[in-house]
Amino acid sequence: MRISVLLTAACAFVFQQARGAEMPGLMPLPAKVSPAEGALRIDQTFRISLAGYGEPRLRAYAERLVARLARQTGLPLPAWPEGEPAQATLAIRCERAGEPAPSLREDESYRLEVTPRQAILSAATPVGAMRGMETFLQLVAPERESFSAPAVLIDDRPRFPWRGLVIDVARHYIPVEVLERNIDAMAAAKYNVLHLHISDDQGFRIESKRFPKLHQMGSDGVFYTQDEIRRLAGYARERGIRVLPEFDMPGHTTSWFVGHPELASQPGPYRIERHWGKHFPTIDASREETYEFFEAFLAEMAALFPDEYFHIGGDEVNPKHWSENARIQAFIRERKLNDNQGLQAYFNRRLQAILRKHGKKMVGWDEILHPDLPKDIVVQSWRGQKSLAAAARQGYQGMLSYGYYLDLMQPASAHYRIDPMDKDAASLTPEERSRILGGEACMWTENVSAETLDARTWPRAAAIAERLWSPQDVTDVDSMYRRLARISRHLDWLGLTHNSSYRIMLQRLAGDAPVESLQILADVLEPVKGYVRNRSNPTQQTPLNRLVDAARPESDTAREFAGRLERLVAGTASAGERREIREKLASWRDNHARLAPVLERSFLLQEAEPLSKDLAAVGAAGLEALDYLESGKHPPEPWAKERLVFLDQAKQQRAHLLLMVVAPVRQLVEAAAR
Amino acid sequence: MRISVLLTAACAFVFQQARGAEMPGLMPLPAKVSPAEGALRIDQTFRISLAGYGEPRLRAYAERLVARLARQTGLPLPAWPEGEPAQATLAIRCERAGEPAPSLREDESYRLEVTPRQAILSAATPVGAMRGMETFLQLVAPERESFSAPAVLIDDRPRFPWRGLVIDVARHYIPVEVLERNIDAMAAAKYNVLHLHISDDQGFRIESKRFPKLHQMGSDGVFYTQDEIRRLAGYARERGIRVLPEFDMPGHTTSWFVGHPELASQPGPYRIERHWGKHFPTIDASREETYEFFEAFLAEMAALFPDEYFHIGGDEVNPKHWSENARIQAFIRERKLNDNQGLQAYFNRRLQAILRKHGKKMVGWDEILHPDLPKDIVVQSWRGQKSLAAAARQGYQGMLSYGYYLDLMQPASAHYRIDPMDKDAASLTPEERSRILGGEACMWTENVSAETLDARTWPRAAAIAERLWSPQDVTDVDSMYRRLARISRHLDWLGLTHNSSYRIMLQRLAGDAPVESLQILADVLEPVKGYVRNRSNPTQQTPLNRLVDAARPESDTAREFAGRLERLVAGTASAGERREIREKLASWRDNHARLAPVLERSFLLQEAEPLSKDLAAVGAAGLEALDYLESGKHPPEPWAKERLVFLDQAKQQRAHLLLMVVAPVRQLVEAAAR
Repeated sequence: MRISVLLTAACAFVFQQARGAEMPGLMPLPAKVSPAEGALRIDQTFRISLAGYGEPRLRAYAERLVARLARQTGLPLPAWPEGEPAQATLAIRCERAGEPAPSLREDESYRLEVTPRQAILSAATPVGAMRGMETFLQLVAPERESFSAPAVLIDDRPRFPWRGLVIDVARHYIPVEVLERNIDAMAAAKYNVLHLHISDDQGFRIESKRFPKLHQMGSDGVFYTQDEIRRLAGYARERGIRVLPEFDMPGHTTSWFVGHPELASQPGPYRIERHWGKHFPTIDASREETYEFFEAFLAEMAALFPDEYFHIGGDEVNPKHWSENARIQAFIRERKLNDNQGLQAYFNRRLQAILRKHGKKMVGWDEILHPDLPKDIVVQSWRGQKSLAAAARQGYQGMLSYGYYLDLMQPASAHYRIDPMDKDAASLTPEERSRILGGEACMWTENVSAETLDARTWPRAAAIAERLWSPQDVTDVDSMYRRLARISRHLDWLGLTHNSSYRIMLQRLAGDAPVESLQILADVLEPVKGYVRNRSNPTQQTPLNRLVDAARPESDTAREFAGRLERLVAGTASAGERREIREKLASWRDNHARLAPVLERSFLLQEAEPLSKDLAAVGAAGLEALDYLESGKHPPEPWAKERLVFLDQAKQQRAHLLLMVVAPVRQLVEAAAR
Repeated sequence: MRISVLLTAACAFVFQQARGAEMPGLMPLPAKVSPAEGALRIDQTFRISLAGYGEPRLRAYAERLVARLARQTGLPLPAWPEGEPAQATLAIRCERAGEPAPSLREDESYRLEVTPRQAILSAATPVGAMRGMETFLQLVAPERESFSAPAVLIDDRPRFPWRGLVIDVARHYIPVEVLERNIDAMAAAKYNVLHLHISDDQGFRIESKRFPKLHQMGSDGVFYTQDEIRRLAGYARERGIRVLPEFDMPGHTTSWFVGHPELASQPGPYRIERHWGKHFPTIDASREETYEFFEAFLAEMAALFPDEYFHIGGDEVNPKHWSENARIQAFIRERKLNDNQGLQAYFNRRLQAILRKHGKKMVGWDEILHPDLPKDIVVQSWRGQKSLAAAARQGYQGMLSYGYYLDLMQPASAHYRIDPMDKDAASLTPEERSRILGGEACMWTENVSAETLDARTWPRAAAIAERLWSPQDVTDVDSMYRRLARISRHLDWLGLTHNSSYRIMLQRLAGDAPVESLQILADVLEPVKGYVRNRSNPTQQTPLNRLVDAARPESDTAREFAGRLERLVAGTASAGERREIREKLASWRDNHARLAPVLERSFLLQEAEPLSKDLAAVGAAGLEALDYLESGKHPPEPWAKERLVFLDQAKQQRAHLLLMVVAPVRQLVEAAAR
């Protein structure tokens, strides 16, 4: 389900009016926010209390809240500045224990009332209290007199119970500490499912004690031990987050066959696949020995992961190896399975029966949907809301990943506009609608490494988190971007490297040269969209150290510049904005002279030379257009034509990068020519 | 020895000619560098070999080298890309085991020969090989064709055997993980002693199982467990670094007395001291019970730290509590100790005898020097080279910390100019000179927290490391700064936060406002020098979250600007430099209009308003001066006078910050007026 998907904004979305007074710091926006008068001062007298039902992970979360508040404000706070509930700056009250393990059925609601005297957080369960603690931290900011949290009454609960992030640890291995900090970020954004894509053609990333050849021969030595997985699941549980394991089957399984060729539909031998894309190796679903293997293997894995769901992948099965195997085709005929699809359904039914024995519910991608399958499975849709609604109508639970593929390098706004329930869900009954559980953002890692994972995921993933948590009518994109900038800073304090890695990667590219002029270029670049980069046929061994890897998925500089230009053309730009536009254009025009020698000196940067040159020309064209506009003079006929021809060329990708200021400058040139 | 010391550059320093062709990346500069033709390509075919004597920490270091090379280049390398010694890209050969524990006597020499075919690193001991591995990593940079290391023959050994960094973990607790990454940075800069200032008036930071009230009542709950200390010493040993514990006595001991008032010279009760400076509480050196305590306590601590040295502090003993205690004064008369100083010498002799029993050599600050003390102690001099030379003449070993106080916020160049052997050592015999063992940089943490430690220490500490490792005639300051910039980037890859914390701290100050204009101001600020900040009487509870805490100890922007202006005034500036000067001045002139509303909105930033306003005026004055200079016109009489009066005001500290571009702009105004 990866290569072919293309994100379109073609779904219906409704602009509704912004919800009340905006709480500047909050993402996701709570279900109900009622601003009040005044603010709660946060200083070194900060005290916290826990009352009602208690358990260690609640106390641990509250201790981390104190440490994070200290980090966020720079205030030296004791490890546990306890106060009486009636006087504490933040008084937390939890009613009862929640689900024993993080669960779809968890009550995540909370109520947070901030007055100038104190903040009172009440929640039914520890997980609800955790969600509320994140909201509290987001409220605290430096104001005129002190750090403070604005007075407010928040009543909050998630719109969807399943809000996940897929991290593909198979294409590129992601070390545990990187996963841990991403779990912290997920909790900050109120995600509640970490979906690990554990195995694929390019790697089998978990220790199996029953079948050690799986990880020993299928992972290049980089895999999670069972202890690490247990610790990771514990780490996630401490933050109210489920860990959903995915073993992608029966396709996407080359790495399994390196150690276990007998599972495959063709004799092999097999090597770990280094290329991306859809490959032929497929599990032989016709042999009874295959199911003996899975009886043992799934028993082992089911015991390792506490979650009640278990993902078996099921996407993009390439039928070639089945079709070419006479024995398999005979099996299909014999069992009246109709075709290869019927065989996949058979395979899924068998796996499902094994999983059920271990108390697990099965999850799979769109393709697992088949009339033969029982209804207690969950379908993860990469195909779209229509497919999701259809599944719901048939009685299946489902969640959406279509539109949430972070590796497509789309802007946050594109993901934000995708709703799991759009017009396709309009005709569903309430019961059918309740089967749409939520969605999952996906970070596929063909072109993402441990070094770049944070920056490829955050802050954009927080916009998707808001879509899944906040009411459906929270759709104001400008508001979303303002709040996204703030949560991005909160993620810095959590140790995410999405911001800090940028300059470090640029420095690597520039070597001993100063990095400033390279950053001026990089600030207006974005990686090419979709899977265009894969056309150059990169492999697992391709270094991810190019400018495209440092460039941010979404250029704030370009987006903000486009906004200013729009106001300029509409005649609503302020004097300050007009000056900033001119300064930016001039800085781009002048940048290439400084940057060219830097680019020339580093083999990694030579490919960026045309982009830098074009940015200079884009800046120059923009300045000319601005001069025409401001002087009221009309440009000579060929001027605009030539500029537009150039700009249409300049917007093409080079070095897998796009110059994101071409489109706004084109608008300016058009305005000048009118 | 802290408050009164003032760093002066009044010592003799000799400018010698730069040493041969500069290897751009190397810091400290090796003893002997002979550049050769060509370069060794570094790509995914990189292979490594270890031959000769082997031990686990050597292999572990080499594995980290591979991981760091991968991080530094972005090349995906296997965990252990082993090759045959004859073919390996980096072939390491170690002759024999070194000292069992990191030691002053360790042979740290190595030889690194890089040819276009391979790099061969040979060393007598594992620690020598570690030093050479750091040099190898520093050689690798992106070039025109690939990453590569220039061909070169390096023969290297340290000038001094004792090259330390004091981290004061008493005034502010520094968590273990921060110490660990600083140990990594120390190894990168070829330091070999981490000196922990473990106890002081404001905190007793280590678990004592014999006397648990020490850490339980004297640390606010933030201390190192014995396990943590053992792990830390192991972590340091793995990097060829000694851990030298310092328990500062008999003064600087208030925190001990909270749990053990019976050790004090006055009855108490005592509380942890929150203020900085010299305090009165002092260990009662006259009671025999005191020495019974130290028999047990030092036995426990001596066993915990493997190093053969043990630091007893001994500085800044305030005699008030001794003088006011009639029993103590009677003891002094009785024992014919002369005076309070005699009593301190008696105390030191007693401690020294206990330490000797445990195989430890005693180290102390200048003040421990007393004719009664045996010669096998080491004196750490904060008073200067004269005092160090005098001690050497008397037969004592010593090392220098005078001139190396990083908390004074001096530029790297000021530290760099201080040599442990200056003119005062000129008249020493070779034997006496050999007693000067090296030096230690000091990071006292009155105004430094775990958050700011890295940025207060690095990269400046690397300049001191070079002074202690490289030959005495390596003194070219411009070369030092070029190489300092590069090692600073290497420290980013090691995870140090000295660069990444800057923007995060600025963001905290700016709240929701964009940070760019704040950064333009912060880029030209430095914290006030010396201990002026302490005049405002901060305490251990004072938040370290102000602009002064974010500002870098040394402004690269200001230093580079000053260099350009110097060339401008001398008439040697290039056209590009002249343009950059004008752009900088204009950006400063225009910055206040943008920044003022940001400053006004955040209580943390309001104090910076005068600085921002003055920067605008400095920029404007500089532009005017530039216009006069370039037009050849002479300014009217009052113009220069008024500007100079203003600039003399603007160079004063405000908010504990200095505008570092005032002095160069003053030079420009003077040039225009001439």
